[in-house]
Amino acid sequence: MAASGARRGGSLACMSSGTLRDLGLRAKAASRVLASTPGGCKDAALDKAAVALVGSADEILAANGTDVANAVAGGVSATVVDRLRLDEKRIESMGSGLSSLASLADPVGEVLDGWVRPNGLAIRRVRVPLGVVAVIYENRPNVTSDAAGLCLKSGNAALLRGSSGAIHSNKAIAEVIRGAYRSAGLPEDCLVFVDDPTRESVPEFLRLDGLIDCLIPRGGRSLIETVKEHATVPYVIDGDGNCHVYVDASADLDMAVAIVANAKTQRPSVCNAAETLLVHADIAQRLLEKLDPALESVELRGDRASRAILGENRVAPATDEDYATEFLDLILSVKVVAGVAEAIEHIGRFGSGHTEAIVTSDLDNARRFQQEVDAAAVVVNASTRFTDGEQFGFGAEIGISTQKLHARGPMGLRELTTVKYLLDGTGQVRT
Amino acid sequence: MAASGARRGGSLACMSSGTLRDLGLRAKAASRVLASTPGGCKDAALDKAAVALVGSADEILAANGTDVANAVAGGVSATVVDRLRLDEKRIESMGSGLSSLASLADPVGEVLDGWVRPNGLAIRRVRVPLGVVAVIYENRPNVTSDAAGLCLKSGNAALLRGSSGAIHSNKAIAEVIRGAYRSAGLPEDCLVFVDDPTRESVPEFLRLDGLIDCLIPRGGRSLIETVKEHATVPYVIDGDGNCHVYVDASADLDMAVAIVANAKTQRPSVCNAAETLLVHADIAQRLLEKLDPALESVELRGDRASRAILGENRVAPATDEDYATEFLDLILSVKVVAGVAEAIEHIGRFGSGHTEAIVTSDLDNARRFQQEVDAAAVVVNASTRFTDGEQFGFGAEIGISTQKLHARGPMGLRELTTVKYLLDGTGQVRT
Repeated sequence: MAASGARRGGSLACMSSGTLRDLGLRAKAASRVLASTPGGCKDAALDKAAVALVGSADEILAANGTDVANAVAGGVSATVVDRLRLDEKRIESMGSGLSSLASLADPVGEVLDGWVRPNGLAIRRVRVPLGVVAVIYENRPNVTSDAAGLCLKSGNAALLRGSSGAIHSNKAIAEVIRGAYRSAGLPEDCLVFVDDPTRESVPEFLRLDGLIDCLIPRGGRSLIETVKEHATVPYVIDGDGNCHVYVDASADLDMAVAIVANAKTQRPSVCNAAETLLVHADIAQRLLEKLDPALESVELRGDRASRAILGENRVAPATDEDYATEFLDLILSVKVVAGVAEAIEHIGRFGSGHTEAIVTSDLDNARRFQQEVDAAAVVVNASTRFTDGEQFGFGAEIGISTQKLHARGPMGLRELTTVKYLLDGTGQVRT
Repeated sequence: MAASGARRGGSLACMSSGTLRDLGLRAKAASRVLASTPGGCKDAALDKAAVALVGSADEILAANGTDVANAVAGGVSATVVDRLRLDEKRIESMGSGLSSLASLADPVGEVLDGWVRPNGLAIRRVRVPLGVVAVIYENRPNVTSDAAGLCLKSGNAALLRGSSGAIHSNKAIAEVIRGAYRSAGLPEDCLVFVDDPTRESVPEFLRLDGLIDCLIPRGGRSLIETVKEHATVPYVIDGDGNCHVYVDASADLDMAVAIVANAKTQRPSVCNAAETLLVHADIAQRLLEKLDPALESVELRGDRASRAILGENRVAPATDEDYATEFLDLILSVKVVAGVAEAIEHIGRFGSGHTEAIVTSDLDNARRFQQEVDAAAVVVNASTRFTDGEQFGFGAEIGISTQKLHARGPMGLRELTTVKYLLDGTGQVRT
């Protein structure tokens, strides 16, 4: 019903007219309303949107069919088509994602701390929405509903810019969600979808100063470079994950095999998968021989020592380029190191600051590794694959930050907020 | 003694050679050592630097004399010369600033929160240094020691770039502090001073990706614009303060007069001084007449209503440009408004997100103002002048952020850190 409401609303102006700046202004206006909207209203709107998505599955699937047909005709790779393709189950999952957001605690209004100054001035530091959160993303239509929901829950208007390849799916999804917001009594511009996904419009988008409070680019290295080059709006980078597992001499070898195999093969296409194995020279022979069968499907590229152990047929020579690469594939770089110091040094040189793991039973080495490795997540005796909003228990995630300012690691609702200082006085002045 | 140690060290290579990139690499290397340095060592180095500054006052004053003479010869304004000029008292104050930093709690290592996941994986969120903090600043030599001290205390290497007008003073101060660090057993490159303050080198500085973890530009609007245009390194903007005081119909008029006068005149040249008075129409006449004598030294620029009340000779006509301007001078814009809604709207249009104040005795209006005004600090019944690290009780301040990401409002030691997730497992893998 919400969806039919969206259609009754006629053409969605956000999509059919207006410059980027106009769209930003509309999101900004909606964000002002949203900043003062009680949590219960936001949750009701999320629930309505969840129901509306499932109820509009036919329309969404029809729109998605157009995108998929265009992709296939355009010779796009099977992986990309798979990310693009929706079915009823995926739409249900988008809906349940919105419902589960509704059940999380509202981050807005949390008093982080508060104190009274000697002059009697009371100060509180309070969590407030950022305002307008913009997301640039690629061919995954589910990001449209995920990002819209995370933004609404955290009190932010969402300004979303998907890719041209998913334009029909994204528009259909956005239309349904906007209708649900409207029927819940919220401004439909709490979600503004940008209907010009041409590359030419990216730089203008990146310069909507005063209208975008936080930009989250979700894409490959070239998008990140474009953002760094052109953006004048504030942004948080969801960057590469060139993750390492270092197996110390003291490691339980069975545990090490399980962790390395999991980190590399459980889902190789994601940013928290491991790309390089570092192994202590003292146990390299035993570990690699034990690990080899578990990595049967994995191409290995190693240094001289690892090639000597597993054979030059099994292990191709690794270059610095290999050590620097996020393969996102069933490929693993291998290096035999003299100890934890060399492992930390290698990670300092090649790591991307995402997730680094050590397998060890030595307390000093565990502590030193966690202390000295500079990454969003530093793991002792577990897989790198746990760096994830859901695995962390955040309930939701809009990305994983590899930068240090504002947000580091999985970004949940908290990272979509800022703070405001509230000062309460009785006439205090400075002397 | 520490200072003579610095001189014994011979030429300070950081200042006499090396590209900007080399300087960044040296700061980065020092930051790795500093990240694992116990708080006691950092505090000892700060105390040594404090003693060394005072002990080297003669050399520093001699160097400062050169800068002051050049400034005077160059026809620089008296205000700028005053900011530039050091004396024994100012050097003592720089030293006591470093000593007082030593007495503050170490922010590094604080466990912000921690929890255990259902699979037994323990997660801690821990405060860690950013790495290298770069500061670009203008003709205030005390910033060299203040920024160096704040960075050291928070475990960051400082990469400082002052202006050409203070180059001799800054070099002398940096040399003394580096010597003190060395004599305390820390890398002298915990402070790297950039000896090329030409405008041409700014863009290169702003693109030291991977070497600068956080840039803090402290300067006027043109510096901020340059940073937004060229920076590819992460930055936090210490921006303008176009601050307002809104006097509600329910305000205690004596309190309102005291607050407005304090906010405007106590120190008009700083960012938390008020620039615009908004006053409710119902009390405009009484308030303005009562306020007028307290603002004797202040030029007023107002709307039609305020000019009718105080006379067209007393109040010049205000333009939108006036309402948008941070005067930093004894000038105040005035506007009579219909109520809190119009005040909030005016602030939304012209405010810079720094500090906004309401004087009221009406609880609803106080709450609404704090809720709806989007600024770093929103004040009820006190002067805008309290938005300041020292006034907040932070013990120190490196600037006041007017942006929303990472830091908002006064930036103390906490804002010079980031977090790291430490995961402790017993062999957990993802299924």
